[in-house]
Amino acid sequence: MLPRLTATYHVRCDAAAIEERARAIAVEQSVEMPLGAIADPFVLSEIVGRVEDIRDQGDGVFAVRVALSGETIGHDAGQLINMLFGNSSLHDDVVLNDVEVPPALAAAFGGPRHGLDQLRQRAGAGGRALTCSALKPQGLPPAALAELARRFALGGIDYIKDDHGLADQAYASLAARVAAVTAALRELDRPTTHYVPSLSGDLAAMRAQIAIAREAGIDTIMVAPMVAGLANFHALVKENPGLAFIAHPSLAGAARLAPPLLLGKLFRLLGADAVVFPHYGGRFGYSPATCRLLARAALDGWQGLRPCLPVPAGGMSRQRVAEMLDFYGADIMLLIGGALLQARERLVEETAAFVAEVHGHGYGHRPG
Amino acid sequence: MLPRLTATYHVRCDAAAIEERARAIAVEQSVEMPLGAIADPFVLSEIVGRVEDIRDQGDGVFAVRVALSGETIGHDAGQLINMLFGNSSLHDDVVLNDVEVPPALAAAFGGPRHGLDQLRQRAGAGGRALTCSALKPQGLPPAALAELARRFALGGIDYIKDDHGLADQAYASLAARVAAVTAALRELDRPTTHYVPSLSGDLAAMRAQIAIAREAGIDTIMVAPMVAGLANFHALVKENPGLAFIAHPSLAGAARLAPPLLLGKLFRLLGADAVVFPHYGGRFGYSPATCRLLARAALDGWQGLRPCLPVPAGGMSRQRVAEMLDFYGADIMLLIGGALLQARERLVEETAAFVAEVHGHGYGHRPG
Repeated sequence: MLPRLTATYHVRCDAAAIEERARAIAVEQSVEMPLGAIADPFVLSEIVGRVEDIRDQGDGVFAVRVALSGETIGHDAGQLINMLFGNSSLHDDVVLNDVEVPPALAAAFGGPRHGLDQLRQRAGAGGRALTCSALKPQGLPPAALAELARRFALGGIDYIKDDHGLADQAYASLAARVAAVTAALRELDRPTTHYVPSLSGDLAAMRAQIAIAREAGIDTIMVAPMVAGLANFHALVKENPGLAFIAHPSLAGAARLAPPLLLGKLFRLLGADAVVFPHYGGRFGYSPATCRLLARAALDGWQGLRPCLPVPAGGMSRQRVAEMLDFYGADIMLLIGGALLQARERLVEETAAFVAEVHGHGYGHRPG
Repeated sequence: MLPRLTATYHVRCDAAAIEERARAIAVEQSVEMPLGAIADPFVLSEIVGRVEDIRDQGDGVFAVRVALSGETIGHDAGQLINMLFGNSSLHDDVVLNDVEVPPALAAAFGGPRHGLDQLRQRAGAGGRALTCSALKPQGLPPAALAELARRFALGGIDYIKDDHGLADQAYASLAARVAAVTAALRELDRPTTHYVPSLSGDLAAMRAQIAIAREAGIDTIMVAPMVAGLANFHALVKENPGLAFIAHPSLAGAARLAPPLLLGKLFRLLGADAVVFPHYGGRFGYSPATCRLLARAALDGWQGLRPCLPVPAGGMSRQRVAEMLDFYGADIMLLIGGALLQARERLVEETAAFVAEVHGHGYGHRPG
């Protein structure tokens, strides 16, 4: 028997009704039928979800811990999210807040194949924070994207990712982008600057895109796991042990799946080497507490999995670099996209100033 | 140039700030960078999202219509949802409420390959509503699931679907289930009763499961598109023109993506022949208005696409059959799972009573 997982749901509910509501969630996320109709003793003892604890969080919210059968999930990442939150995602009163997975499941999913340390080593970055920017806007031809990449690289940036909107469009197919950008970077002979193309389409299309990228010498890839489907994301990770994967939060609808859990923990579990997420005070409404928890979930010792590199982003600018480094410490990659691109003809200089600020920061302080 | 789509977002916002918020959404879902940093005239005129209309809906909610470039999406269902709601799904104040797609995009995605009429014809059901039940609980061995299927079929049911929790688990793999259930049904010689296995895993695993199912003569399949990834769901639809597809709402988190849009319209656009959704007054909190809009979105004439069969479910029972048929009319499939299974040794009789009620209903009334 595979051991149980424990999911914690935050449920908005009257105190008088929470026990019944908790039992209903445990049933919904396991057998999804009246228990009175189940005769099979194996199902009743092993498969039905069990409410293990209910805790009043205040403000009408209860934390409900439910033990779910590991057998219903096996080693399928799609089943993992289906059993954790499939039907309950349709309920307005429930947020999936956390999950504890048994060591065997953590080992089976495997977590980051490279993670923080490898991403640093590939960039020759020592112990400092990493730097990242984005190729955009979508709609530019490959040559224009390659010229942006060239200037970011001249400014000394570590990772240059595609905007997550860049897919396999007629005006800049992945193959054309990869060819143009890698050619531009090769000319500069800066092996520590890495181009990170974004994958799109179904699993077969993503596999073909990876083949193109590998052929061009690319060693880091971006995927939006919630758009791709978690099982497909995990398949790509398993099939490509040499590639590092940056997870993008597109479609993560994180108001219903707690961001530290989904982006920090689950994406890491499935093999994200780095995860992009919105830093507070930018274009998205995360709180400082959420951002800190997310970074800790990605980095902290957990089941022997490698640390996943946090990439706070979403409307950041040079003005916030020192503050972010003080907040997170050195174990992050700073991603500034639009604010650098606004420099237009001064892109190299602006990038270099960003890079200098990250390289020169005093990393004495590390928050808890 | 591919023509534009128009997305409608419901945004909770102060009246004084809504114009700026609307422009921010249009930018977030297109170029995701400051417009001042964009020089390219093609990008500015064709790729940047355009706010077309802002309407006060009352209660602090505004309907914001944004025209999005068709070029950014091409014919990729993953890009469709990425461009419609990828980053905005992270914003608490936004619900994606509706989308208008140009005829060429509707034709390219193609909608249901079979839809309402074929599902009826395969069941020999004339003009009445269809009937459906579910094999569960998960954890039962294949022989026990096959025995349930046999009894549902003896009761005269049209479609027998796997519970969406049934995947490829050790205790009842898809191959073992398909073998056991189809053997049981073959013995009864009731070609109008159809077994509908549920797919799981990544795209490659789903393809292998479909091969097993087709080999066994199965002509209808269930997939949860949000778990599988929309692009993978659409790939399966395109590759298997002979199969009918029932879409399951797992992980649809439909509080942030309006249910009539996601379950009624988008799943239909990508080829769902039938869509399972929660009927009001069951285990889920949809309103009667939401259910009616969802059914209309699945059924109404739209871009020449076939109607998608609405399958209201989620805690239904025989007691609600007449009410549901009065509410929806005949163009539905009634899905009762747990409440039938509660009959245990009287499963055939209870199923037959459900079936008789649907077959004998007076279908004169059809709501608007």
